[in-house]
Amino acid sequence: MPASLQLTSDGKLKHFLTTEGLSKELLTEILDRAEQFVTLPSKAQNKFPLLRGKTVMNLFFENSTRTRITFELAAQRLSADIVNLDIRSSSASKGESLLDTIRNLEAMNCDVFVVRHHHSSAPHFIARYCAPHISVLNAGDGYHAHPTQAMLDMLTIRQHKPDFSALTVAITGDIRHSRVARSQIHALNTLGAKEIRLIAPGTLMPAGIEQMNVKVFSSLDEGLRDADVVVMLRLQKERMQGAMLPSEKEYFSLYGLTEKRLKLAKPDAIVMHPGPVNRGVEIESSVADGPQSVIMQQVTNGIAVRMAVMSMVVDSQSKGQG
Amino acid sequence: MPASLQLTSDGKLKHFLTTEGLSKELLTEILDRAEQFVTLPSKAQNKFPLLRGKTVMNLFFENSTRTRITFELAAQRLSADIVNLDIRSSSASKGESLLDTIRNLEAMNCDVFVVRHHHSSAPHFIARYCAPHISVLNAGDGYHAHPTQAMLDMLTIRQHKPDFSALTVAITGDIRHSRVARSQIHALNTLGAKEIRLIAPGTLMPAGIEQMNVKVFSSLDEGLRDADVVVMLRLQKERMQGAMLPSEKEYFSLYGLTEKRLKLAKPDAIVMHPGPVNRGVEIESSVADGPQSVIMQQVTNGIAVRMAVMSMVVDSQSKGQG
Amino acid sequence: MPASLQLTSDGKLKHFLTTEGLSKELLTEILDRAEQFVTLPSKAQNKFPLLRGKTVMNLFFENSTRTRITFELAAQRLSADIVNLDIRSSSASKGESLLDTIRNLEAMNCDVFVVRHHHSSAPHFIARYCAPHISVLNAGDGYHAHPTQAMLDMLTIRQHKPDFSALTVAITGDIRHSRVARSQIHALNTLGAKEIRLIAPGTLMPAGIEQMNVKVFSSLDEGLRDADVVVMLRLQKERMQGAMLPSEKEYFSLYGLTEKRLKLAKPDAIVMHPGPVNRGVEIESSVADGPQSVIMQQVTNGIAVRMAVMSMVVDSQSKGQG
Repeated sequence: MPASLQLTSDGKLKHFLTTEGLSKELLTEILDRAEQFVTLPSKAQNKFPLLRGKTVMNLFFENSTRTRITFELAAQRLSADIVNLDIRSSSASKGESLLDTIRNLEAMNCDVFVVRHHHSSAPHFIARYCAPHISVLNAGDGYHAHPTQAMLDMLTIRQHKPDFSALTVAITGDIRHSRVARSQIHALNTLGAKEIRLIAPGTLMPAGIEQMNVKVFSSLDEGLRDADVVVMLRLQKERMQGAMLPSEKEYFSLYGLTEKRLKLAKPDAIVMHPGPVNRGVEIESSVADGPQSVIMQQVTNGIAVRMAVMSMVVDSQSKGQG
Repeated sequence: MPASLQLTSDGKLKHFLTTEGLSKELLTEILDRAEQFVTLPSKAQNKFPLLRGKTVMNLFFENSTRTRITFELAAQRLSADIVNLDIRSSSASKGESLLDTIRNLEAMNCDVFVVRHHHSSAPHFIARYCAPHISVLNAGDGYHAHPTQAMLDMLTIRQHKPDFSALTVAITGDIRHSRVARSQIHALNTLGAKEIRLIAPGTLMPAGIEQMNVKVFSSLDEGLRDADVVVMLRLQKERMQGAMLPSEKEYFSLYGLTEKRLKLAKPDAIVMHPGPVNRGVEIESSVADGPQSVIMQQVTNGIAVRMAVMSMVVDSQSKGQG
Repeated sequence: MPASLQLTSDGKLKHFLTTEGLSKELLTEILDRAEQFVTLPSKAQNKFPLLRGKTVMNLFFENSTRTRITFELAAQRLSADIVNLDIRSSSASKGESLLDTIRNLEAMNCDVFVVRHHHSSAPHFIARYCAPHISVLNAGDGYHAHPTQAMLDMLTIRQHKPDFSALTVAITGDIRHSRVARSQIHALNTLGAKEIRLIAPGTLMPAGIEQMNVKVFSSLDEGLRDADVVVMLRLQKERMQGAMLPSEKEYFSLYGLTEKRLKLAKPDAIVMHPGPVNRGVEIESSVADGPQSVIMQQVTNGIAVRMAVMSMVVDSQSKGQG
């Protein structure tokens, strides 16, 4: 995935499709801008005029109420017009191709497409073939990438642990089916994390993942030792096929994050989860709600990161050329 | 149901969950403020900036297009950002608990939750456990309460009959399954109505209802005599079980409001109905559309009452603490 | 269909239900106003305050994501409040009549109803019986009319061929089931087109259509000869019954617009299609995407025409009486 598709000729963020291949400076710019949206607003001034007169279109080819809402709120708070399009019930069902759908929507003078798709790389395809005045934000594609989720995770980490080069991050769970983990690994490597550990049973660990500059563990206890950040992934039961599905009880006994196990990590380690949480499956309730959990802070940061990325790509539209 | 959950420490309306337990002064404040929204706007200035920068989230665990739209319009006219969330299709379906759903939504910096739920007291549960910066408006919960509906009814009554202490109000129909009736009875008692009559067949009259300071009638003719206000309830066929369901024809002959029967009430009695109307079941068409009907005025008042309550709870957020 | 229902007493556009019966001056006013919305906005100022404080309600009794979105975007860019109502899931399903639904919605102080309905004349019925402060825009009714689609087509034609009196327009395809064709024929006749040709197999040509001042062709080659404008209609497979349905291959061989056939039209002829396009059924892909195609320009003009009509009917509300 070349960075050039994501950047204008003068290096501005044009599309946000993946954290892979973007520079440390650009990822840091996203974090800095998001941080402003987190800290600036008193509740009396939750509105910014940055996208006034712009149209954001939520194109959800796969259902995701939670992600759709955060993009919708981000667009509203930037004063954009926003249209939600559940593609499954649209004229796509009249046999129209993806490209024809895109051609029609871009002719409506839209500015930003937010794309969620069950096929990996669908947002890249749209970014490659859509009109040059459009920016595409990937809201999750197949098992491939979920870059805004990864960046809200980076923002949350940085708020607690500002120096990435000192951090050991342990990502645990269903790595195989996790677009979140892939996007986190790229971002953590670019931001200079000291060590990235992946912890999963063999059936949930993708082959060849070691090439991504990570350490692979099959034991949760070993992987957690002295970690600064513990990222628990959702057991994506709906994505797994029969044979590889462990029982929830068995999974929890081997890979569930309990209070006891969390003691293996650093005393000030933070616990993260992209949600929704399977309590008692990948994480004990008392940990999810405990003092080290920053799960709700991740949600809050999600709005800010999406505002940051939306405002950056719209900036690039007025200043550069894709 | 203690009033304290609904009020800030200095007595402002924090949540609006039920008309029960609120003071006459507070109910009157709702009516006064709503009256302003009814009378102030020329059509050229239907927008008020009172909720600008605030986010209202419509949480509908039960389908109700009509009620959702009135809350949505109320929020729009107050310049709020608004998100509609059909919970039945959301991540609740991924097994997330109600509390986890609420935790996530409140982390998105929302200000007001509008909650419709098939279980009685779900809005109370949410109000009790949600973050202190959130206000909850009950948009109908099970058979329990529908306080904004009751208050739009009170506003409509007051517009025609300003002195509650002179009024005999006859509420007729499926009292048993009516959250509207419960909320009306509390509000009418608090506002000092002279007499509240409930008229229904035994199977549709809840046991022990007499304790609510009402008079119970099984004869419509007797109950209507000299009434000032006649409230007809919708026969909630979808809520009734086989054995207790009368035939529509039989029901109409015994409990349908006809022109002839309406003559038993005072000559200037008004006829109300929360809608949608079953014509020819609980009310004759010529009565629903007749000169004494104020049914459409109720709908108009519904927007104003919801604007009033939204603006009051948001006021309480900036001034008091829950 | 008398024009008077569509006009105020002083001749302003009150409702837009059909292109039939409206004057050349009025259709031209729609085109002129739409042209302003196309040309005025730099991307920085895509918002107009013309409908600020007004409420537009999208009443879709028939699903149409594409048309709904264009009306929604038009309303947003005019700063209206907008509510989408999928009637199929609303209280209409509780047995409420169309008239009761309309009565309720108009009591909510709405200003414009956008109506899509599978029954011909449903928008006319609503316009006739709704409150006088409401304007109704027909977004497609049965096989009858789709006037905003026709006017966006007229705008597109005029942008390329300003003199209607010099134009031969060939409309090809499923005329029988096409509300678009009916509305185009009325508009083209009123705007003074030199010649309107309808091209279709007998089973897809409605009886008696010749009375509309058109020339009927069963041969595509003959009908295309020296045409200035070629309008290809979608083969509405979902509207056709078994016996009259040609195979797609057979249809394409007889009535599909190919590059070769297009050479029969004038060298500068434009090719139009209301979308969504069935590639390889009624039109060859290379023609749909070719230099003579203005299909995407039609989509862009659709927003502008809907903005024009919305702003005109709202103007008529403040100035005239329906």
